[in-house]
Amino acid sequence: MRHFLEIDDLSKPELDQVLHLASAASSPTVLANRAMALIFEKPSARTRNSMELAVVALGGHPVYINNEEIGLGKRETVADITRTMASFHAAIGARVFQHSMVEQMAAVNAVPVVNLLSDRGHPMQALADLLTIQQEFGKLRGCSVAYVGDANNVAFSLALAATLAGMEFRIASPAGYSFNEAALARISNVRKATQTLQIFDDPHQAVQGANVVYTDTWTSMGQETQAAQRRNDFAGFTVDAKLMSTAAHNSIFLHCLPAHRGEEVTDDVLDGAASRVWVQAANRMHAARGLLVWLLREANR
Amino acid sequence: MRHFLEIDDLSKPELDQVLHLASAASSPTVLANRAMALIFEKPSARTRNSMELAVVALGGHPVYINNEEIGLGKRETVADITRTMASFHAAIGARVFQHSMVEQMAAVNAVPVVNLLSDRGHPMQALADLLTIQQEFGKLRGCSVAYVGDANNVAFSLALAATLAGMEFRIASPAGYSFNEAALARISNVRKATQTLQIFDDPHQAVQGANVVYTDTWTSMGQETQAAQRRNDFAGFTVDAKLMSTAAHNSIFLHCLPAHRGEEVTDDVLDGAASRVWVQAANRMHAARGLLVWLLREANR
Amino acid sequence: MRHFLEIDDLSKPELDQVLHLASAASSPTVLANRAMALIFEKPSARTRNSMELAVVALGGHPVYINNEEIGLGKRETVADITRTMASFHAAIGARVFQHSMVEQMAAVNAVPVVNLLSDRGHPMQALADLLTIQQEFGKLRGCSVAYVGDANNVAFSLALAATLAGMEFRIASPAGYSFNEAALARISNVRKATQTLQIFDDPHQAVQGANVVYTDTWTSMGQETQAAQRRNDFAGFTVDAKLMSTAAHNSIFLHCLPAHRGEEVTDDVLDGAASRVWVQAANRMHAARGLLVWLLREANR
Repeated sequence: MRHFLEIDDLSKPELDQVLHLASAASSPTVLANRAMALIFEKPSARTRNSMELAVVALGGHPVYINNEEIGLGKRETVADITRTMASFHAAIGARVFQHSMVEQMAAVNAVPVVNLLSDRGHPMQALADLLTIQQEFGKLRGCSVAYVGDANNVAFSLALAATLAGMEFRIASPAGYSFNEAALARISNVRKATQTLQIFDDPHQAVQGANVVYTDTWTSMGQETQAAQRRNDFAGFTVDAKLMSTAAHNSIFLHCLPAHRGEEVTDDVLDGAASRVWVQAANRMHAARGLLVWLLREANR
Repeated sequence: MRHFLEIDDLSKPELDQVLHLASAASSPTVLANRAMALIFEKPSARTRNSMELAVVALGGHPVYINNEEIGLGKRETVADITRTMASFHAAIGARVFQHSMVEQMAAVNAVPVVNLLSDRGHPMQALADLLTIQQEFGKLRGCSVAYVGDANNVAFSLALAATLAGMEFRIASPAGYSFNEAALARISNVRKATQTLQIFDDPHQAVQGANVVYTDTWTSMGQETQAAQRRNDFAGFTVDAKLMSTAAHNSIFLHCLPAHRGEEVTDDVLDGAASRVWVQAANRMHAARGLLVWLLREANR
Repeated sequence: MRHFLEIDDLSKPELDQVLHLASAASSPTVLANRAMALIFEKPSARTRNSMELAVVALGGHPVYINNEEIGLGKRETVADITRTMASFHAAIGARVFQHSMVEQMAAVNAVPVVNLLSDRGHPMQALADLLTIQQEFGKLRGCSVAYVGDANNVAFSLALAATLAGMEFRIASPAGYSFNEAALARISNVRKATQTLQIFDDPHQAVQGANVVYTDTWTSMGQETQAAQRRNDFAGFTVDAKLMSTAAHNSIFLHCLPAHRGEEVTDDVLDGAASRVWVQAANRMHAARGLLVWLLREANR
């Protein structure tokens, strides 16, 4: 049984297939008379809404379950709650604090499991990112994406996705906020001989001539106590008009949102002509639609 | 783009149209393959259920989102969350503490915004009230409604609705609980030369000969600390059998619920032959259905 | 109007009918264009998911309402909230702390009320249990079920269900954890002359030769402060491989879940060849489907 815990669960042809399915105007109702459990250990706006609507678009019934209602690993083992959910649902999506939670769910191997954000990665976001870039430039291969900021879960999935898609990936982070060895090794694993992963400590070097400039919050959920320290450490990493002006002609700006205006991005960039953040948000639903069609077809083989 | 933040967002012919659509046995599926976000900063029984079922009746998928899940204006600006919701949904409904929240949402002007109760008004309730009165008396124009109690958000929207519909509106409140100048000015704005808004401090004067007697809780959500003071201040404003006996022959009793039995209304009135409160509750769904059909047609013009 | 607060709300022929409807591959869409309120004073995985999916399978729209959203008996009387829910919904299901809550709801008699677990009983679980046993043995009459552990709400409904179905029911509980007089009297009430209810204090005596071995948690929700005491009191009542070996040839193990592995049941039993707990969980949906079809047909007579 196939699961989708991270971008590199897909081969390059499979990634192409998912993006193709996501680009279709409508989808086969692979979830007709079926349901999908959407488990959220922490709240979400984009992920929850996009997943619910993707399930509905496929003819299914989404059941949104919050942390208080399920208490993953508290009332019963993660494996047991997974087996229970699999008794009712054609698939399980979960937003978890610890990536090992979705790994434990997938290990049960009862129904396909989808990672809806973990401390490790955010592959559903990365699919939407690729879809947005593809719509904008008509291709992925050869495009360059510069990520400015914390090498967090969003950056990790994006790095894997961009690399797998044959794009050039660059990242600029302050000291101490770069990818760790394990992350770098995993990204290397999907890299072709002709590709490089470029790591900078200066945002201007990363953004120089890039087609896509991407950033995310400096302080993710759960890191609130580090907010002041992080604001200090990320000084100079704000994506502003000046930084954007060094990117390629017709470059676009992306952000997985929510945005902290004035911190990682200025108003004029977020609301500016290069910003595609609302299209990108809307693409979350289409990416989910494509992924679920692919995943459920695989499950029914 | 049209929004529905308050009754006077509608012209008289538009109000008639909405009530006509609400009275139809069935509705066009204007939300087929689409969804509506229902955001609740505070909990609700009638509003949530009626809105969900109205969306379903129009072929759509409702997504109920509570305060903890969205944190309006906390995780991101109200405008940004509105843009995100508009990326997924055909319309947004919101129950908010501060009316400025729905105003900010409507200002984005991305999809129609519906006020599901604010500190200022409760226009979805007022639509259901008019629908109930129309069903009972076969008309609205010329009917008189006497509101007894706190000139709160429910009273304000009802005053606007009754006035716009050509009804006679009377209100009796204790000193200090009347409409403020801004509310009075706004009601005046929809008043015709032949209409008067009658304000009393004696419930009997207001109810005398009225076709409809209406009351609401003395202590709304968020005012709990004032409950004892308010019970004292509203002494004598209970709608009881004696007060009802001074209303017109065949008068009816309405209440937006929840009712505090023994405070603003006695059991014998709430459960009595003149009470239409459960029909009124059921009409919340039909009013929502009518309003949404009208609003989405306007959005698609 | 018929309600389903406990198994003995059904006659034997009605129970057969419900199980027959639950066994059908598909169901008539008795809830088409209608909705059902699912009220949960305490959280649930199996009950919530199975009920939502049953409502969807019948063509309806489920509205899941948690305790914070409804505050049963706090914002308004239980009768009033029931009348409101009946204004919108074709049926009401409720998981409550006190059984009197569902009794008050049923007393309003506006729409059918279904007990989704109370301190008294868990009849929806018992229906799924019978369905599972019937699927396994091709019959119910004459089969024996041995319940090991706390004579709680699950045990009570199971005792009623097994007895009504013509099965032999045995229970082994530590001193102080047996059925009380009222429970025993109620079970007697559905007992035929040929049937006995056998009560033991030794699990081995109860399980000896039984077709079905059943257990549940020693510490139900709300009893957490007694957990240590109960673990002590239930020593020796763990269903393990040795105990299972004394049951009948081809006996099966059931558990309403969540399971506390190593307490009331060992891993090797829960995960073993005799365990039918995941089929049993999946049968929750089918049992709900059957019950709702029957109940709504009765309501429409």
